[in-house]
Amino acid sequence: MNVMAKPQSRYDVLFEPVRIGPVTAPNRFFQVPHASGMTNALPRVRAGFREMKAEGGWGVICTGACSIDVSSDDTPLPMATMWDDNDIRAHAMMTDAVHKHGALAGVELWHGGASVMNRSSRIAPLSPSGIPWMATHVGFMGNLRPRSMDKQDIRDVLRWQAEGARKARSAGFDVVYVYAGMGYLGYEFLLPEYNHRSDEYGGSLENRVRFVREMIEVTKEAVGQDCGVALRISLEELRGRPGQNLASEAHEVIALLADVPDLFDVKMDSSPTDCSASRFTGEGSHEPVIDFVKTLTDKPVVGVGRFTSPDTMVSQIRRGVLDFIGGARPSIADPFLPNKIREGRIEEIRECIGCNICISSWHDGVPVRCTQNPTAGEEWRRGWHPENPGRAEKGERVLVIGGGPAGLEAALTLGRRGHEVTLADAGSIFGGRLTFERTLPGLSAWNRVVDYRLGRLNEMPNVSLYLESRLGASDIADLAPDHVVVATGSRWSNFTYSSMEIPVGRITHPNVFTPDDIAAGRLPVGPTLVFDFDNYYMGGVLTEHLAALGIPVSYATPAGQASAWTIMTNELPLVHRALAKRNVPVTTLVTVSAFDGKAATLTQIFTGEQTAFACENLVIVGLRLPNDELYQSLIADPAFLAAAGIKTVERIGDALAPGAIVHAVHSGHRYGRELGLQPQPFRRDAPVVDFEPAFTSRAGLAEG
Amino acid sequence: MNVMAKPQSRYDVLFEPVRIGPVTAPNRFFQVPHASGMTNALPRVRAGFREMKAEGGWGVICTGACSIDVSSDDTPLPMATMWDDNDIRAHAMMTDAVHKHGALAGVELWHGGASVMNRSSRIAPLSPSGIPWMATHVGFMGNLRPRSMDKQDIRDVLRWQAEGARKARSAGFDVVYVYAGMGYLGYEFLLPEYNHRSDEYGGSLENRVRFVREMIEVTKEAVGQDCGVALRISLEELRGRPGQNLASEAHEVIALLADVPDLFDVKMDSSPTDCSASRFTGEGSHEPVIDFVKTLTDKPVVGVGRFTSPDTMVSQIRRGVLDFIGGARPSIADPFLPNKIREGRIEEIRECIGCNICISSWHDGVPVRCTQNPTAGEEWRRGWHPENPGRAEKGERVLVIGGGPAGLEAALTLGRRGHEVTLADAGSIFGGRLTFERTLPGLSAWNRVVDYRLGRLNEMPNVSLYLESRLGASDIADLAPDHVVVATGSRWSNFTYSSMEIPVGRITHPNVFTPDDIAAGRLPVGPTLVFDFDNYYMGGVLTEHLAALGIPVSYATPAGQASAWTIMTNELPLVHRALAKRNVPVTTLVTVSAFDGKAATLTQIFTGEQTAFACENLVIVGLRLPNDELYQSLIADPAFLAAAGIKTVERIGDALAPGAIVHAVHSGHRYGRELGLQPQPFRRDAPVVDFEPAFTSRAGLAEG
Repeated sequence: MNVMAKPQSRYDVLFEPVRIGPVTAPNRFFQVPHASGMTNALPRVRAGFREMKAEGGWGVICTGACSIDVSSDDTPLPMATMWDDNDIRAHAMMTDAVHKHGALAGVELWHGGASVMNRSSRIAPLSPSGIPWMATHVGFMGNLRPRSMDKQDIRDVLRWQAEGARKARSAGFDVVYVYAGMGYLGYEFLLPEYNHRSDEYGGSLENRVRFVREMIEVTKEAVGQDCGVALRISLEELRGRPGQNLASEAHEVIALLADVPDLFDVKMDSSPTDCSASRFTGEGSHEPVIDFVKTLTDKPVVGVGRFTSPDTMVSQIRRGVLDFIGGARPSIADPFLPNKIREGRIEEIRECIGCNICISSWHDGVPVRCTQNPTAGEEWRRGWHPENPGRAEKGERVLVIGGGPAGLEAALTLGRRGHEVTLADAGSIFGGRLTFERTLPGLSAWNRVVDYRLGRLNEMPNVSLYLESRLGASDIADLAPDHVVVATGSRWSNFTYSSMEIPVGRITHPNVFTPDDIAAGRLPVGPTLVFDFDNYYMGGVLTEHLAALGIPVSYATPAGQASAWTIMTNELPLVHRALAKRNVPVTTLVTVSAFDGKAATLTQIFTGEQTAFACENLVIVGLRLPNDELYQSLIADPAFLAAAGIKTVERIGDALAPGAIVHAVHSGHRYGRELGLQPQPFRRDAPVVDFEPAFTSRAGLAEG
Repeated sequence: MNVMAKPQSRYDVLFEPVRIGPVTAPNRFFQVPHASGMTNALPRVRAGFREMKAEGGWGVICTGACSIDVSSDDTPLPMATMWDDNDIRAHAMMTDAVHKHGALAGVELWHGGASVMNRSSRIAPLSPSGIPWMATHVGFMGNLRPRSMDKQDIRDVLRWQAEGARKARSAGFDVVYVYAGMGYLGYEFLLPEYNHRSDEYGGSLENRVRFVREMIEVTKEAVGQDCGVALRISLEELRGRPGQNLASEAHEVIALLADVPDLFDVKMDSSPTDCSASRFTGEGSHEPVIDFVKTLTDKPVVGVGRFTSPDTMVSQIRRGVLDFIGGARPSIADPFLPNKIREGRIEEIRECIGCNICISSWHDGVPVRCTQNPTAGEEWRRGWHPENPGRAEKGERVLVIGGGPAGLEAALTLGRRGHEVTLADAGSIFGGRLTFERTLPGLSAWNRVVDYRLGRLNEMPNVSLYLESRLGASDIADLAPDHVVVATGSRWSNFTYSSMEIPVGRITHPNVFTPDDIAAGRLPVGPTLVFDFDNYYMGGVLTEHLAALGIPVSYATPAGQASAWTIMTNELPLVHRALAKRNVPVTTLVTVSAFDGKAATLTQIFTGEQTAFACENLVIVGLRLPNDELYQSLIADPAFLAAAGIKTVERIGDALAPGAIVHAVHSGHRYGRELGLQPQPFRRDAPVVDFEPAFTSRAGLAEG
C-alpha cells in the first residue's frame, strides 16, 4: 500500500522509511499512542478504528495505555490491559488489521503508579514514596492513597513490564513502549516531588532515572530483535529545572538515556498542556520543550503538536526537531492525512479543529468521538468509512434546509452517495452557529468544520448551494424533492435553572440577553452578568468576548468552576485564566432566581441563601430550543407532502436535539448514510473470552 | 431453604409469604433494585452478588436498572441491558442462582429519558418536552440535550418495554418492573417541570399519568401470568403538591393506578434523599412521604429506609406502612440479615453504617464496595462468602497489632479460619480512627464497624484481646507468633498542596493543626481556617465539629465544592447546608501557600492570584502518612524475626496505604483470608457473547 511519493514533491521527505531499532517504519507518519476509549472490552471497535489510519497511510499505529498489571487499574476510565491470554488475542485483532496495510503496530505498556485509583482491583496503588495525586476534579479523586514501593515492588514492576512486553510480541506488536510521562509511575520516579526515596532510586538525577532505565532494559531483553523499544517521556517540568552539567534536567535525562531505547517519544506532562485545545494553543506548541532532544541522541524522535499542515511537518524534519511526525488528534480527524499529502490532495485534508471532544470521550469513559470525523469509532460498529460512504442504490432528490454543521455534513454525505442535493440556507454565508462562534476569542480554527465541507461541496456537480434562501412551503413544493431534511439549528432561551437541576421558568426583562442577541449585535450597555448553566464553552467564551468589547462583565454559574464541563476538553484552567486576565469576577454554586434591571438575585444552590448582585443586564447561557417550526409545519400537513411528492421529512442536528457541534455533524452524517436504507442498530462488541457457554434457564423460550 | 420461623417469635410476621400478582414471595424481605456497578459485562460477578442474598434469606432479589433500548444509555455509569439474546443469557445466570435458594428474581426495566447522555449509543435522548437534566456535577453533565418525543416515540418506548418484559420472562425473572422514578422517563411524564405537553400525555394529572399507566399495561400483557408486574415510583415531589381531590398529587397518582400494577415500590426522587447517608438522615426516613400508599391500594407495597432493626421492620408491617421490608444497603452490608433474624441471631447482624460507599461505587463506575461487608462484589471474583471464610489448613499463631477497622477485621477473619489470634492495641478502647471519628457530628452509626467485630471477637475462644498494649520488639518476641500483621493506622500531616495537584512542602507553625491534634483535644483558640485537600468527609465534618465547639472557623479547598468527593456518597448538598447552618464561610478553588499565625495566603489554583485570609490557626486536612515505623523496624531485622520464630510480617489498612475505612476493612479481610494460602489474582468476568473466536496472528506463540 505504500506507493512511492510523486517524484520531487517537497513532501517526499515525509515518506522516507525510518528504522526503529530492529524494525522499520514505512514513512514518517507516526500515530502515537492516544486514548481512544476502546478497551479490551471493544477489541473489534478498536481494531477497526486503528486499521483505518493504517489504510490512510500512517506508517506506525499505536494503541493507547495498556496496563501491565492489576495494580494499574484506571477503571472506569478506558484502558487496555495486557494481563492474560485473552488480552493477547484481543490486541492481535488490531495488529493483524494494521499489518494488512503495511504499517507497524505499537503498544504503550503502562503502569499508572499513584495516579490510578484501582477502584476495581482494590489494590493499594504503587508509588515511589506514597505521594498521591489529589486532583481537584471529582472524577480523578480517590480515597485510597498509594503505598510506597519497596525493592520487591520495583522488581515486580520490572517483571510485569517484561511479561507485558513478551505478551505484546505474541500479540504481534512491532514497537513496545516504556512509559515515563503524564504523572504515571516512571514519571513519578523522575520527579523529586513524587520521589522522596533515599535508596539508589531516589536523590540524584542518575538515581531518579534508574527505574526508567531498568524498565527499558528489561523490555529490550524481553522482546529481543522482534520489536523496537520506545521510551515515552514527559519533559515539561524537567525542562524547567536547571541541570548540573547541561541546560536542564530534561537535557540530563535524555543524555543519560541517549542510547538506551530505540526511539524517543517526547511530550508534555499533563493533559491540558500535552493535548491543548486550539482555543488557547496553536500548532506545534511542544517544540520549545522538546526541541533539544535530537541534539543529544542519535535515536529517532517522535513528537506531536496537532500537526495538520504538511509544510509545518516538513519544517519539523528539515530543522532537525523530529524524525517522525507524531499525530493523535489529526489522525482521528483525518485517518487519510498521509495519503492525501502523498497524492497532492492537500485541500482535501479534514483538519483537526482542536476542540478536544476526542479527549473528552476518554474522560467520559466512552469510545472516541470527533467533531470533524463523524466516522471515528464507527468503523466496525456501523461499518462507516471516512472517505467512502458508499453509493446509494438509487439517486434521489434531497433538499437540505440549513447550512450549519449538520446540514453541510448531510449534504456532503448525500452528495458522495450520488444523490441530487439542494442545500439552502437563509443566511448570507454557510456555517450556521459557527458563523458567530468562529468570531469568538480563540475559536477561529473551528470554522474548519465549514471550510472543509464547503470546499468539497463546491466541487460536486450533483450538489446545488443556495444562500439567502429562507424556504417556505411553496418554495419547497416548487423544488419537489423526494426527501426534505431540516437542519435549522437551535436558539438560546431565557429559561433559568431550578433546584431540580433542570431549566424552569423564564426571566423576561428588556435587559435580558442570550448568546443569539450578542451574535446579532445587540449588546448590553453597563454592568452585565453572564449566568451560565450550559457549562460548556459558550458561557466562558462569550464572557471573554463581552469583556474584550469593554463591557463590564461578571460570570456566575451553579457549577463549581467556570465552564465546568471544559475540564473534559483540557480547557478549564485556561478558561479561568482567560477570565482573570479580563478581570472578570467569577461566582460559583449559584443560580439566578430573579432580575429587575438593577440587580440579579443569586441563590446558593445548596443552602438557598439569597444575595443581590448589582447589574443592569443579564445574559443567560442555558437552555437551547430547537428551531423546528418548519419541520413541525411540514409533518403536520401530509396532504401537502403527498401533493409535492415528498416521501420523507426528517430533522437533524440542533433542530432535532441541541448539542455540541460533534453531535450535529454525527447526526447529519448518519442521515446522509442511512437515507433509503433500513436503519441498522450498531453492532455490539465484546471481549475475547474463553468461558464455557453459560447455563440458561428459560433463555431458550421463544419470544414475541 | 425457607424453613418455618420459630413459633411465636415476634418476628414471625416478617416470614409470611406475600403474593405479587401471579407469583408468591416466600417472605417479606425484598431486596429492591439497586445499583451494583455490575453490568452485563460482569454477569458472573452479578449472579454471585445477588445469589448471596438469596442464600441469606431475602425472598425477592432484584437486579438494578436494566435498559430496554439503546436510546437509554448511561455509559460509562454501570447499567444492565436487555437488548438482545446475549443479554437474556447473561441475566439468566442471576435468575438461576437466585432460584436455587427459593427466592423470586426481579428486574427493573428502565428507560432513562432525558437523564441519560447516550454517550456511547450517540442517539439524541428522549424526553416528554425536550427539558434536559443539567446537573452541576461534571460526571452528569452532557452536551447533547434531549429531543421531544412525538407519538411514534411513545409507541416505540411502549414496544421496547413490552419486548424487554418478554426478554425478562425468557431470562427467568418472576417480577418485572416499570420504572417511574428518580428523574427517569416515566417520572418526567409525571412532573410538569419536565412535561410541557399539550396532548393527551400532558397537562392534567390524568394525562401525565397516562404514559406510566400504558407502560404497566403493556408489561402485564407481555408477561401474562408468568410474572408479577411492579411499579417503582418516586413520590417526594408529588407529595408536596396539593391534589385536586386528594391530599396531594402523590395521593392522586396512586389512586389512579391503584389496581394497575401487582406491586408498588415507592421511594424518594433523587439519590441524596432516596439513599441518604446516616450522617444526616436516620432509619426509616421515607415514611412521611410514602406512608399513605397502602390506604389507597390493596396491592402490596414495598419501601426502603435503611432498615436494620427487626423491631422497626415489624412496626412497619403492623402499622400498615409496608407489606415488604425493602432493603438495598442493609442487604449489601449483611446478605444474611433475614436468616439471622429468623434464627434469633440478632446480635450477629452486620448493620449497614450508612456511609454510602456502595452508591459511590456506582458513581465511580465500578462494582459495589461495602465498608461493613468486604466480601460484597467478591463472591464470584475471589470466591468470598460473607459468613464463612473457610478453615485454615493449619491453625497458626497470629499477632495483630492495632485494633482499628483493619486490625479488627483481620482478627475476626483469622479467628473464624481457626487461627490462634492475639489482637493488641495501644489505646484504652478498640476502634482506631473510629474512636475519634464516631464522635464527630452525625458519624455515630459508623461505630457499627467496631461494635459488630468486637461483639463477635469477644465470643471467640481462640482470640485474645489486649488493650493499652503498645508492643515493642521484645514484647513481640515474648509472644512468639508465627505471623505478625501490623495495623497501626496512619496520621495526618502538615503537607500542603502544589500546582501539580499533589501534596508538597510542609507548613510548620505552632498554630498549625491536623485532625489528630483535634482528636487529642488540642484545640485552636481564635479565628481558624480549615484547609481541606483530602476532599472526602473529614474536612467538612471537622469544620462542623469546631464550629459546634464555638470556634470561629472558615473552610477552604482547592476543589469546586466543600467535601467535593461526597457528591459520590450523596452527601455534598447536606455538607454545604451543615456548614451554612454553622455560619462557616466556604472558599473554593484555592490552596494555602503560606501561614504566619496572623493570616493564611490563599492562592487561586488556576490563576495564581494571592490573597491574605486573616486567621490565627490553620487546620490542614490533607495527606495522611502510614504509621509504619514498627513494620519497618521489624522487617529491617531478619535475625530478630528468625530468632523469635516469626515467619511473616505484613501491614494492612492505613498502615499500608491510608484510605477510606472501606479499604482498610477489605485489606484486613484479605489478609485474614489469604494467610497461609498462595495469593490468587481475582477472576476476570466477561459478557456472554456469541462471537466466533477471533483470528490471532502470533497469539499462539509460547511465552516465557
